[in-house]
Amino acid sequence: MRIMVMDIGKTKTFAIIMDEVGQVYAKAVTGPSGMWLKEETIVKNLGEAIKECLSKGNLSLDELDLISISWADLDTRADWENAWRIAEKLGLSKEKTIIEHDAVAAYYAVTWGKPGIAMIAGTGSIGFGINKRGERARSGGWGWIIGDEGSAYWIAIKALNAVSRAYDGRGEKTMLSKKLKEYFSIENELEILTKIYKEMSGEVKEIAKIAKIVDEAANEGDIIARRIMEEAGKELALCVLSIAKRLNMEKDEIIVGGIGGVYKSKHVRRVFHKLLEENLPNAEIREPLIGYTPILGPIIIAFKKLNIPLSEEKVESILASLSE
Amino acid sequence: MRIMVMDIGKTKTFAIIMDEVGQVYAKAVTGPSGMWLKEETIVKNLGEAIKECLSKGNLSLDELDLISISWADLDTRADWENAWRIAEKLGLSKEKTIIEHDAVAAYYAVTWGKPGIAMIAGTGSIGFGINKRGERARSGGWGWIIGDEGSAYWIAIKALNAVSRAYDGRGEKTMLSKKLKEYFSIENELEILTKIYKEMSGEVKEIAKIAKIVDEAANEGDIIARRIMEEAGKELALCVLSIAKRLNMEKDEIIVGGIGGVYKSKHVRRVFHKLLEENLPNAEIREPLIGYTPILGPIIIAFKKLNIPLSEEKVESILASLSE
Repeated sequence: MRIMVMDIGKTKTFAIIMDEVGQVYAKAVTGPSGMWLKEETIVKNLGEAIKECLSKGNLSLDELDLISISWADLDTRADWENAWRIAEKLGLSKEKTIIEHDAVAAYYAVTWGKPGIAMIAGTGSIGFGINKRGERARSGGWGWIIGDEGSAYWIAIKALNAVSRAYDGRGEKTMLSKKLKEYFSIENELEILTKIYKEMSGEVKEIAKIAKIVDEAANEGDIIARRIMEEAGKELALCVLSIAKRLNMEKDEIIVGGIGGVYKSKHVRRVFHKLLEENLPNAEIREPLIGYTPILGPIIIAFKKLNIPLSEEKVESILASLSE
Repeated sequence: MRIMVMDIGKTKTFAIIMDEVGQVYAKAVTGPSGMWLKEETIVKNLGEAIKECLSKGNLSLDELDLISISWADLDTRADWENAWRIAEKLGLSKEKTIIEHDAVAAYYAVTWGKPGIAMIAGTGSIGFGINKRGERARSGGWGWIIGDEGSAYWIAIKALNAVSRAYDGRGEKTMLSKKLKEYFSIENELEILTKIYKEMSGEVKEIAKIAKIVDEAANEGDIIARRIMEEAGKELALCVLSIAKRLNMEKDEIIVGGIGGVYKSKHVRRVFHKLLEENLPNAEIREPLIGYTPILGPIIIAFKKLNIPLSEEKVESILASLSE
């Protein structure tokens, strides 16, 4: 049996071919194909990933038994129609292909398909849940401009804003000022403007890296930084709780967990878990998945579809062979 | 006497040639040359504006008596060095040229050079003041990513965020949801993502237009929208007060005024003026300049430099001839 699994993301497209035992035959990485990009970009990068992967695996599309895809930024009905249209254009037949939003894939990585909620907090943030009746809901995931509360980017912007206010005399002094000047190797706070707008051109992933410094400052006792990290934890919990409410599973025995680098922060974890414990009395709150490999979601989805058990050992061996 | 006046902005470069009586001989508009852009772009657009203006006025650079420039995004010492280097490269001699930050130019439009503070709130926001000892300070103006609190863009983002939270069940219901769906001609809130990230590519000026709808909703009684507009007024006032404090002129007889389209909102004006009146007891708080033509700032600066009186009538006749 030959299974193609793909993680179609905002920053890259990753495709692998594996079998039902978990052996990986081919892998390919190309540019991003998330749905907010132009169609020609998506078709090009996704097409190349498929072609390269098939060629490395000495296979044709017809020989694939299943194609399991996690796709970023499928938000609207039009996005879904476009996704299926592009997939079919590239030769992926509707019968053999599963497409899921990347938040759904993350949900599978956290819950392995059992009723529950996964809350992603990496560069961006989004929550997704499914209840025992199979009903689905998302919360958050409105992107870096509108929301993504609690994400690394959001934390970074809160910190930059706090530094700007402290500099102007519109906000409390914070250790973040010194730390960010060191980080950027600058002498005056206003030079942050050159860094962010001119040198980094507002690049989201680059800016999001500042979140680490905020957590560091929080650990060293800075009140402003700590407040930002705690607010992140609260915002992430609010997303989870809004999903639980909409799916009417606040009292259910569900699995809930965070996933993504932001949960490295003990301040985020503490507030996040506290609010979940207080409001979801029967939930099993899992430790956050921090080193999540996004391809894991569509792998679990594929095995679930095939009704083949997937042990944690097998997952680890697959992931190990991917990192080679 | 021949005076070249330029407004070098984020969205366009505008140059005119006039005389000391106020007659305008030539004007030229080219692409943006704000300092956050690449040097080659700045040199090209600014160079073209100068060349075209001189050619229309049948003049050479040597024949100009004064060049008065308002330049966007001169934030750091490096920015200033770059600005002067580019100006000299384009043949503008240091002796005959005045360069000011665009916030300073706006300050001159509000105060005509008397001690005081101008608070700009258009697409972006920034405050600038000079005290009776000639000391200068700015506050805000950290751009759309980090701050620009109280600006039209900031108001728009607050509104989009409120709609996202209401949709997810993480925030109160608001009339803004219906209004924004109408504005974008969409049926579901999630389609806002396609509009903002895919179709508008996050374009700041386009997004800022949403501020009008927020004010409309506030006028129609929506609590969330009203809270956003009032918070904008408060943030703008905080910028002014931080400048007054740093320049030690909280008790001085200064001129203070807003400038820019955001002040069309009665909610913004009310809160802004109230906070200024409470905290700057001896200030003359002027009605906001709403239809401000940014070229006015460097015109006033030029006449001040030449020690030539500039009546409001003359200003109006200049501006009228510019809009022809």
